[in-house]
Amino acid sequence: QGRKKENYNNRGMRFEEDINSSINYYRETGRALIHKKPTPVQIVSVDYPKRSAAKITEAYFRQPSTTDYQGIYRGMPVDFEAKETRSHTSFPLKNLHLHQVKHLEEVKAHGGLAFLLLRFGGEQAMYVIDAAHVIPWYYDQSERKSLTKRYVASHSCIVPEKLQPRYPFLDAVDELYFTNDS
Amino acid sequence: QGRKKENYNNRGMRFEEDINSSINYYRETGRALIHKKPTPVQIVSVDYPKRSAAKITEAYFRQPSTTDYQGIYRGMPVDFEAKETRSHTSFPLKNLHLHQVKHLEEVKAHGGLAFLLLRFGGEQAMYVIDAAHVIPWYYDQSERKSLTKRYVASHSCIVPEKLQPRYPFLDAVDELYFTNDS
Ligand SMILES: [Mg+2]
Ligand SMILES: [Mg+2]
Repeated sequence: QGRKKENYNNRGMRFEEDINSSINYYRETGRALIHKKPTPVQIVSVDYPKRSAAKITEAYFRQPSTTDYQGIYRGMPVDFEAKETRSHTSFPLKNLHLHQVKHLEEVKAHGGLAFLLLRFGGEQAMYVIDAAHVIPWYYDQSERKSLTKRYVASHSCIVPEKLQPRYPFLDAVDELYFTNDS
Repeated sequence: QGRKKENYNNRGMRFEEDINSSINYYRETGRALIHKKPTPVQIVSVDYPKRSAAKITEAYFRQPSTTDYQGIYRGMPVDFEAKETRSHTSFPLKNLHLHQVKHLEEVKAHGGLAFLLLRFGGEQAMYVIDAAHVIPWYYDQSERKSLTKRYVASHSCIVPEKLQPRYPFLDAVDELYFTNDS
């Protein structure tokens, strides 16, 4: 059981690393300028030892007010949250936090691209799904508490695992948002 | 001397608070969606005491890779660095960090609005100056190591101190970037 959890956490770490390496690749090649937001921390006390780096000795996690990833793509603001679920068949809406959903809503209202990057258990591919296909289900969970993989698959673009970048999710973004552009 | 420093730090805090309260006001009123980026911290160890919040007991400051403020305004990506100098007459270029300048360059290259929000000593007003008027001087400091206030004033829009928001810098952004729009 403990072992299983560790594996999952490692997988969770890999998930984040895969996305980070992809955004770094896109940044280095100039295709997009996307950064991961740092975890917000409330710093309470700091030691300043001589001849070495300042050491934070007391701090607390703060509630983030946005999503994990933000930047610019094709001149447009882009904003997304990346989520992985162990489930092979559905994405539990409780994996999303209210502040993330609200932020994605605000991004849309301000004209930015707002989506989720989802990965299910037992599958290497990811899905790019526009926030509009998720937000209403988040706010009304009386009917269903999760999105089926079938629903996600039919309202999104798939991102296969590749080598460079590991997850070419901007190809899916192109397909989703820019296909009908001249 | 120590007292003077403290006053300056307080003033520095106020500077940041003034900007933060202004972006919050703009967010709440729906005019723009701008957030301050959290300070990046490398977390080394965390205590998870029973019945109370996780406590970070060892962490270090990491080098930020972007500027302080990012968001969306009028559907466009907006990105800026806020800087205050004690000097009444010039802005020392050493107040800028290479990663900030590089990031502002990248934002411009990707089609976003990239500027600095500057405040000089002895003055409550701020200046919104496009990064293009600062970057070349940063990279070549052989001629001058600072921008005179006169230079800044003649290449920027001024932001007077008001009540709500404290610094209506988006009016200056409008003037600077959107004046010739239909
Ligand atoms: Mg996430
Ligand atoms: Mg700053």
